[in-house]
Amino acid sequence: MKKALVIGGSGTLGKAIVAKLKDFPVEVITAGRKSGDYQVDMTSTDSITALFESVGSIDYVIVAAGQTHYAKLEELTPEDNMISVHGKLLGQVNIVLIGQHYVNDKGSFTLVSGIIKDHPIVKGASSAMVNGAIDSFAKAAAYELPRGIRLNSVSPNLFEESAEKYKGVFIGFNPVPVERVANTFIQSALGIETAQNFKVY
Amino acid sequence: MKKALVIGGSGTLGKAIVAKLKDFPVEVITAGRKSGDYQVDMTSTDSITALFESVGSIDYVIVAAGQTHYAKLEELTPEDNMISVHGKLLGQVNIVLIGQHYVNDKGSFTLVSGIIKDHPIVKGASSAMVNGAIDSFAKAAAYELPRGIRLNSVSPNLFEESAEKYKGVFIGFNPVPVERVANTFIQSALGIETAQNFKVY
Repeated sequence: MKKALVIGGSGTLGKAIVAKLKDFPVEVITAGRKSGDYQVDMTSTDSITALFESVGSIDYVIVAAGQTHYAKLEELTPEDNMISVHGKLLGQVNIVLIGQHYVNDKGSFTLVSGIIKDHPIVKGASSAMVNGAIDSFAKAAAYELPRGIRLNSVSPNLFEESAEKYKGVFIGFNPVPVERVANTFIQSALGIETAQNFKVY
Repeated sequence: MKKALVIGGSGTLGKAIVAKLKDFPVEVITAGRKSGDYQVDMTSTDSITALFESVGSIDYVIVAAGQTHYAKLEELTPEDNMISVHGKLLGQVNIVLIGQHYVNDKGSFTLVSGIIKDHPIVKGASSAMVNGAIDSFAKAAAYELPRGIRLNSVSPNLFEESAEKYKGVFIGFNPVPVERVANTFIQSALGIETAQNFKVY
């Protein structure tokens, strides 16, 4: 049976992906900072390497985690911007750079970007920057992956489940059910496409 | 008279931008790692701050510099990827984050990304990642800039002037004269648009 590793499996999105994967003949393994079957600190390359060493044979790597820093542009410092760079950008890129040497033939990577890249919000410049980097990295790196391994990113809109909490931030956005976003992660991970930036807007 | 600061003013692109600016009533100041009117190390926030402190009143900030690391994906390490992150991504972003507090009302920032983001090449994943980040940052941050300050990025194709040197790398790309790219930097810097990713393909 194929194996899927969901990193960030205990968040809103991660849980929805794990639930959706139950419809498929796939063994699901979860990893998170503090919860899940395995612990991983995405900001540490040693921790990412240790994760792949521990998990062993793996087919589908799905990332549903990544911290970014929100601040008004005038208050955004180079230092605070690094929270996003390390937390969401490099963490995901390093999962591919390190994981490419572990994932089985015809496996896949699915990364998470976000709608702020296409539709900016106040305080969102750092997050937008990272989302753009993830989409472009996924598109370019996919073509160089060996052994039929695929790579895509998924850019979600605001989740319906978070809409009330963020209604003053994502002004006028039409939220989508997280279940629809999770479905697109499955499409990316288990389907045939590669080098794509899937939008769930 | 308005003042333009061209960072990376002694490279192929920078020189073309400086030459093109001579057609306009703008005082041109150049900065570079080792050449130009001022020296700046884009990887250092202290150096960027010192540049703006030294230059004084400035209207148009144009960046035509940025180092990225080219490597086959299977050989691209997290450490080598940081060359691009520090050299082209954070350097430019920090020029905006720091420079926003110095640039005159109705001034502008113009950053440089690149075609690899849209049309990947072998060994180009790190560069594509950075280009995507720059485009998305420019688009998002622009809307938060105060005092009528504008921000765009320009994504150039391969230069005709470099086409022979890179013919085995940029396979089938239709190169553009660097003079056309320089012209688009002028359009961004001195025009009225903001939050745009200009492509010169």
